Amino acid sequence: MLDCIIIGSGIGGISSALTLKANGKSFVLLGSKDLSVKITRAEKVNNYPAFLGGSGEELCSLLKTQLEREEITVKEGRATGVYALKDKFAVITQENETLEARTIILACGVESGKRIDGETEFLGRGVSYCATCDGFLYKNKKIAVICLSKAFEHEAEYLSKIADKTYLFPLYKGVELTGDNIEKIIKMPTKIVGGKRVEKIFYADKELDVDGVFILKESLPPETLVAGLETENGHVKINRNTETNLSGLFAVGDITGRPYQYAKAVGEGNVAAHAVTEFLNKNI
Amino acid sequence: MLDCIIIGSGIGGISSALTLKANGKSFVLLGSKDLSVKITRAEKVNNYPAFLGGSGEELCSLLKTQLEREEITVKEGRATGVYALKDKFAVITQENETLEARTIILACGVESGKRIDGETEFLGRGVSYCATCDGFLYKNKKIAVICLSKAFEHEAEYLSKIADKTYLFPLYKGVELTGDNIEKIIKMPTKIVGGKRVEKIFYADKELDVDGVFILKESLPPETLVAGLETENGHVKINRNTETNLSGLFAVGDITGRPYQYAKAVGEGNVAAHAVTEFLNKNI
Repeated sequence: MLDCIIIGSGIGGISSALTLKANGKSFVLLGSKDLSVKITRAEKVNNYPAFLGGSGEELCSLLKTQLEREEITVKEGRATGVYALKDKFAVITQENETLEARTIILACGVESGKRIDGETEFLGRGVSYCATCDGFLYKNKKIAVICLSKAFEHEAEYLSKIADKTYLFPLYKGVELTGDNIEKIIKMPTKIVGGKRVEKIFYADKELDVDGVFILKESLPPETLVAGLETENGHVKINRNTETNLSGLFAVGDITGRPYQYAKAVGEGNVAAHAVTEFLNKNI
Repeated sequence: MLDCIIIGSGIGGISSALTLKANGKSFVLLGSKDLSVKITRAEKVNNYPAFLGGSGEELCSLLKTQLEREEITVKEGRATGVYALKDKFAVITQENETLEARTIILACGVESGKRIDGETEFLGRGVSYCATCDGFLYKNKKIAVICLSKAFEHEAEYLSKIADKTYLFPLYKGVELTGDNIEKIIKMPTKIVGGKRVEKIFYADKELDVDGVFILKESLPPETLVAGLETENGHVKINRNTETNLSGLFAVGDITGRPYQYAKAVGEGNVAAHAVTEFLNKNI
């Protein structure tokens, strides 16, 4: 029986894999040979310590080399269900395979709800989900902020202070945010379009020129993937040791909440690998 | 006023600095131009994602290049006290400078060495961690200096010039310091005892009369560095957002507990920078 199945081959899952390997544990790293679409699409990575490469693509290439060097292979697959059995877990994949292991590290990223046309296409090319992560890129620029919940009004406000002009699409009632450079549009945005980067956003029968689009929303609850998994504001609830409410199941990276950053995912991935190792040692 | 002072130039503090810089915040990174002795000494680093260099020295060299590229300079200095004032913090350095900022990120590593019996009890009553702060109190007196690293030999020398008699306990190899009034003892000190103030220090089966004991080590016990800081098993107690019990003061890396790993420190450093950014935006 495998010691662990790591679900997700983003940088958080890779961090777990590297440390489990160093700790001599057996595992499957379930994901994609391309590792992570999100990483590949990142335009510029300048706050990940000791990475001088620049683009997400270069980061991805380093990670691939490192996995090869450490003799870790990614198993292509997508988990559709995780089930807690007695003393073990079963993972069902989209490819209809069943894998079993004594522990699970969930590292499959944040699930988004209904997407706007163009949202996925322009992610990392003008579309962002994180004000504090990417806001600084839009100093003196024009942005649209699609705000799905009042809880994110302070993030929208933060963005409006950086950008020259903010078109605010509040998709909730009782919007309070105002500002000289904020134009509120009480309509549903329908489409994001552009070339290499975002250029326009459409709503009703109108269009606006923008340099970026921030979409501030909660993630989809991951309890659809794992029955009985406790979540909080759409993210898997973990403690500082990356433990979830299910004994033997750990979670790392974007799925556990903001900031959606490589560094944070890497840190949690490392902590989870140590936690899994301790768990296995205790429960022989 | 500075937005933040990052205390410690290890990889956790650097992670915070890179992200605060990206977020456009003003800060001082207080530490050493060499960044971190611990990193430099690591023989092999193979589980830090996207780092293929091998040795800790190479990791350190990448970090230095990255700091230069991002125009972040390390301010040489060592904090000896952090004080929470109204709406800001003051940091006193060993170099007798006072720095002020609205927030603090504590990233100064885990306290080195096991505490000696009586160390905590007599702190401020004969036990001191700071030669330049308290040295002058021991003019013409007898002191013990417990020196945990060669890096502090100059501090021990400074003390020996003030005191009448210095018993030096060097807890490292290759001690070079000599002096007429210095008596070197190559034993582990075991206990500090006294009444209102320190009176004696014990080692092996012997005891010495002393007026004071200086303990010169890399990292201070966190509750000594920051009055009122909550700790747990010798580590700073933080939540998942790296918040301590003191509003505006965050902690990252080894100081917050195991695993003592670069990846974990990097993750917490990133989270703290985002938490600081949010804190500043909320408390304008």
